[in-house]
Amino acid sequence: MFTMKKENYNNIQETLSECRNLMTQFCTSDLSPDSVLYSALHYHLSTPGSESRALLCISACLALGISIQDSARLAAAVESLHNASLILDDLQDSDEHRRGNTAVWRKFGKNVAINASDVLLSSAFALAASAGDDSAQRLVPIMSRSIIKMLQGQTRDLEFCSQSTIDDVISIATEKSGSLFSLCLELPIAYKGHFECLKNASEAGASFGIGYQIFDDLDDQDKDSATKNRCNLVSLITKSGSKYNPANSAEELAVYFLRQASIKAGLLPQGCGGLLIKKCSNLIKKISREAA
Amino acid sequence: MFTMKKENYNNIQETLSECRNLMTQFCTSDLSPDSVLYSALHYHLSTPGSESRALLCISACLALGISIQDSARLAAAVESLHNASLILDDLQDSDEHRRGNTAVWRKFGKNVAINASDVLLSSAFALAASAGDDSAQRLVPIMSRSIIKMLQGQTRDLEFCSQSTIDDVISIATEKSGSLFSLCLELPIAYKGHFECLKNASEAGASFGIGYQIFDDLDDQDKDSATKNRCNLVSLITKSGSKYNPANSAEELAVYFLRQASIKAGLLPQGCGGLLIKKCSNLIKKISREAA
Repeated sequence: MFTMKKENYNNIQETLSECRNLMTQFCTSDLSPDSVLYSALHYHLSTPGSESRALLCISACLALGISIQDSARLAAAVESLHNASLILDDLQDSDEHRRGNTAVWRKFGKNVAINASDVLLSSAFALAASAGDDSAQRLVPIMSRSIIKMLQGQTRDLEFCSQSTIDDVISIATEKSGSLFSLCLELPIAYKGHFECLKNASEAGASFGIGYQIFDDLDDQDKDSATKNRCNLVSLITKSGSKYNPANSAEELAVYFLRQASIKAGLLPQGCGGLLIKKCSNLIKKISREAA
Repeated sequence: MFTMKKENYNNIQETLSECRNLMTQFCTSDLSPDSVLYSALHYHLSTPGSESRALLCISACLALGISIQDSARLAAAVESLHNASLILDDLQDSDEHRRGNTAVWRKFGKNVAINASDVLLSSAFALAASAGDDSAQRLVPIMSRSIIKMLQGQTRDLEFCSQSTIDDVISIATEKSGSLFSLCLELPIAYKGHFECLKNASEAGASFGIGYQIFDDLDDQDKDSATKNRCNLVSLITKSGSKYNPANSAEELAVYFLRQASIKAGLLPQGCGGLLIKKCSNLIKKISREAA
């Protein structure tokens, strides 16, 4: 059971606040304040989302004994990548709103959105490289691989068609959502040199990404199938079953992956997967309540 | 005078060949061979351009005594960024052709082009981080800053309008073209720890970027003004003169910046700016011949 002492809670809040500052600072400090890119980035970042990826990373960092300063840098790297992907996602899905505001591409134009996303992608690398004196060599290749997997998932998601199978769609969720959740754990683990644990971190994030995606699709299944030609795991599972067990419902499949994520996160050193385990448990409870 | 021994020429060719292999390997090795991103990247990279940025970087690396293996990695990082920017440029300018082929966005779609460009951007960081055992910490922030400057230049270029001044347009050329030329010299110099020379390297690349851009615009002035609402330095200079000297012709301004680039490159250690100096001299000769 993941419990949090008051001292830990204060450290997490302090780190999160520093993470927000660093994220904005790194992506805008080389831009002219009168440039549209500067305005677009400030606009997007001024309304933070759930920051769940930053929090997962911070929680893992602090459990591993990483300083608040470096924890904030790693979390800001992850959160910058998440924001870069959201700006592109909205453009590529033609979603006009994000976090209650007009999406960047709709407000500033498509080209500004593409370039703002690339600024965040680049500054994410600078953020990770600024954590510690000798960690960049370890962190950069892991980040690059995660981003490339995310981009592959995003591209395959956009190609989704009526011939796509559940296996295709699970791969897409693994790559598109899972890669970044994995990175939240992989960065702190690689920073501390626990290379033997990277595989478990990667698998925990991947399974969580799938479970989370099914949960999310359960929420807006009707909306998605009505408005988009994008993959919705729930409608596909309902239609055709899955290789994991053809009789599985979408809810059972979500629970299966969330349990897998929880098991793998439990194998990570110094309880650094604690917050992910708690998230899995919360999602499983919600699914069970809604199915009841 | 930049002269090249046969041994140097062979080393440059060997490094360039390794650079090409590494560039393709790093951007595609984490992709499924059946994915459209993989196809798009192989398609784009199968027709190399002039590779002038890779060659500038390799020449500087070898002059500084960097191994062929690490020189290839730094050059592949620069060339990956150049390719990333070309794929985006074509999309954002609606240019349908690149290197005699259909442009990536026109052949594979806009979203695939955006994502392929981002794969190259990410793998560029992994390439730079793979050079040497402890250089990533030094190279990554320099790369990130260059990319952000390039993106700012690209964004301002797309916003170019009839109110833009020559100073605006020179800033655009500095950022959009100059940043990457600077990086060709900055990466090897930072790799070797000559931090005191980074400013000269940056200024040499920036001035070369402006001179090269005016030279390029002199070539296709008529085409540009007819088909695009983009900045063309030559038409602007002809219209309104410049702060450098209101009486300057475009040709004189190009020569001024190329001479500046040559002077700064001449201050770099171990003759590592030699190839840039030679390029400046060649461009100045061409401009003089064409003006005569």
